[in-house]
Amino acid sequence: MTLTDLATRTYNHSFRLDPIIRSLLDTDFYKLLMLQLIQSRHPATEVTFSLINRTQTVRLADVIDEAELREQLDHARTLRFTKQELIWLAGNTFYGVERMFRPNFLQWLANFQLPEYELRTVGGQFELSFTGPWAAATMWEIPALSIVNELRSRAALRHRGRFALDVLYARAKARLWEKVERLQELPDLALSDFGTRRRHGFLWQRWCVEALKEGLGDRFIGTSNVLLAMDADLEAIGTNAHELPMVAAAQARNDEELASAPYRVLEEWQEDYSGNLLIVLPDTFGTTSFLQEAPDWVADWTGFRPDSAPPIEAGEQIIRWWQEKGQDPRRKLLIFSDGMDVDSIMATYRHFHGRVRMSFGWGTNLTNDFRGCDPEGDAPLAPLSLVCKVTRVDGRSAVKLSDNPAKATGEPAEIARYLSVFGDIGRVSTPVRV
Amino acid sequence: MTLTDLATRTYNHSFRLDPIIRSLLDTDFYKLLMLQLIQSRHPATEVTFSLINRTQTVRLADVIDEAELREQLDHARTLRFTKQELIWLAGNTFYGVERMFRPNFLQWLANFQLPEYELRTVGGQFELSFTGPWAAATMWEIPALSIVNELRSRAALRHRGRFALDVLYARAKARLWEKVERLQELPDLALSDFGTRRRHGFLWQRWCVEALKEGLGDRFIGTSNVLLAMDADLEAIGTNAHELPMVAAAQARNDEELASAPYRVLEEWQEDYSGNLLIVLPDTFGTTSFLQEAPDWVADWTGFRPDSAPPIEAGEQIIRWWQEKGQDPRRKLLIFSDGMDVDSIMATYRHFHGRVRMSFGWGTNLTNDFRGCDPEGDAPLAPLSLVCKVTRVDGRSAVKLSDNPAKATGEPAEIARYLSVFGDIGRVSTPVRV
Repeated sequence: MTLTDLATRTYNHSFRLDPIIRSLLDTDFYKLLMLQLIQSRHPATEVTFSLINRTQTVRLADVIDEAELREQLDHARTLRFTKQELIWLAGNTFYGVERMFRPNFLQWLANFQLPEYELRTVGGQFELSFTGPWAAATMWEIPALSIVNELRSRAALRHRGRFALDVLYARAKARLWEKVERLQELPDLALSDFGTRRRHGFLWQRWCVEALKEGLGDRFIGTSNVLLAMDADLEAIGTNAHELPMVAAAQARNDEELASAPYRVLEEWQEDYSGNLLIVLPDTFGTTSFLQEAPDWVADWTGFRPDSAPPIEAGEQIIRWWQEKGQDPRRKLLIFSDGMDVDSIMATYRHFHGRVRMSFGWGTNLTNDFRGCDPEGDAPLAPLSLVCKVTRVDGRSAVKLSDNPAKATGEPAEIARYLSVFGDIGRVSTPVRV
Repeated sequence: MTLTDLATRTYNHSFRLDPIIRSLLDTDFYKLLMLQLIQSRHPATEVTFSLINRTQTVRLADVIDEAELREQLDHARTLRFTKQELIWLAGNTFYGVERMFRPNFLQWLANFQLPEYELRTVGGQFELSFTGPWAAATMWEIPALSIVNELRSRAALRHRGRFALDVLYARAKARLWEKVERLQELPDLALSDFGTRRRHGFLWQRWCVEALKEGLGDRFIGTSNVLLAMDADLEAIGTNAHELPMVAAAQARNDEELASAPYRVLEEWQEDYSGNLLIVLPDTFGTTSFLQEAPDWVADWTGFRPDSAPPIEAGEQIIRWWQEKGQDPRRKLLIFSDGMDVDSIMATYRHFHGRVRMSFGWGTNLTNDFRGCDPEGDAPLAPLSLVCKVTRVDGRSAVKLSDNPAKATGEPAEIARYLSVFGDIGRVSTPVRV
């Protein structure tokens, strides 16, 4: 038996020690890269980000107490970037580049605060949205998802006994370690943690990341979580996301501007960033049409991150396109990050090994896989397909078509208009892997 | 009852989680300031630092297991400055100055390792010494003291019961908090933690520092512990120590060079540092003779840190000297750091308030005061008068006279020679306050 430290216990009860969001760096690195671009180039753009629970069968508002959710969201709004964090952002090297973040951006960050939120409960689901300048609202995406996911885990485990909990985590640790041992079979593996948004909880993600660091060595190239990257001296991993083309598309004044929006975004990106940050995310409005219409210079970028098509087909399609453009795929990079797990990582690795450089972003199945671990069954801890997407831009609906219609977001009329511009070729409905 | 985490417990048993020295930043800030000067100006100087236990009544080798001591010293030698720590040293502002540490010094630090040690047990005491380049051996001073002091605390408490320990720390916390409440009476107080070297333990020092931060607010101006300054976003406090004049004196080739050594050191210091770092430590060879022989420009420095004479007499002596030099004491700073506690802090504050700027470095009586807390009596946890001083320089004995002969160190013949050069005026034997 260990001694109960009453002071600590009481302090914990008063919630300050173990909030879900401990730091504004507890977010994905790509948010900071995009934020610097947004803050300097689009300071006047007003957006709304909204929580979307694709797993409608789970009535979140029945599981999570709305007051607890408000308490966690309110706590996140009290956070500021600390002196130590800003010094690290200024002084650390990212992707081999020094001074990735400009001094005036870091000064702006020093006063950054998450903007207000709107929260209602409707039909067993939360309507949670964040409206404000793009450079403020965008920063809610990851904390909002982390908070909802961890509150659900905490609710599911609240009334479990001590030994039941001990067994649950023992099984989850064993399960992850078996995955690590299988991944050790892949000599040239390059794997990173992309699991912040869907994690079981912050402390569990930290355990997983430390396990990969010990178990995979150099094959573990880093984490998308900036706080964990700083605390564990790991590389921060990430580039850009769908919100950039989605906002550019929503701001298009006509169909021609809409058709060129995905490439306009890349032009801005390559003015601000270079090297391994030149990664194309091609599926926002369908990968096939993106490749058909892409200017030749897009083929000069370092790589692609297929995010909604099955990895092997998507990879083959991009490799063919590179070859048509006269590029050598062996000098290009493919980043696979859509619902990957050990089986799909190993199959994809073996399929493409030697033909193209690869790296894998391992998300939900790294930081939230409790299948077969819970004596009460998998349902209470089964990960949700929960996203927080930009839904409105300067008063207009934002749209994502995706390669998988099941992942499409936006008002039906706008979706139809986008389909008339980008077409529907190559889009295949498949069940959404978390 | 809380659940025992067997994995964590086993990990702790294997000692990696809770070593006494966790980081090379777990040292006093003045060591880093002096190190930069030593590394650039005196790379060829060879020195020996030696542990000196002035509390001979405590037979340390009977209390501390030599093997445990070696284990802790060996662990400290495995430490390197981490990437995050070097980034913080490069990017943080110290005393309002940016880039206090030069890039080539930080590159040199990146490869820094504590040098080897020599340890023997003789007559119930440890003979522990560190020989090597000055820029390496000097860094052992604080970790060596922290390790010996904390090993003694751990040995004293090893066999105590859980509730006895809980009561012990509860009393110590209450005792410190009473001191904080008394210090709140002093509106213009400027207090910093100087307690690393004599602390009861690292975690206890951290608790004390966090308590002062919460209890004293702006009146708590920072800590000399660099790691705690970084982790708690506090100011790192410190300037220079006796080793600078002691080494310069030992290198003097004749009595004239010996007489001028204390001022030669200050000339070097003011070439490297400025502002609030221009603090004179006058007592190495006696304050009275130091002031008598001091060039006028010494009076232009920001302040003095009397360290071995009674604070009020020492302060009055320095104020008189400033006035003789035509300086206004109200624009000068006195730093009191010799064995201070609440009573002497309050008495000194009230004595000088309005006549001179003051700040207090609170050491042993902040981080190692368990008087009246231990059901088994005060002896086992009573702080030792333990120091780690430079004893040899390029093969010659190093000497400290001090204002208090009880604090003098060095070979008797050399002490006699120094007394013939600096004189004995104003030196008064008083019992050494830890």
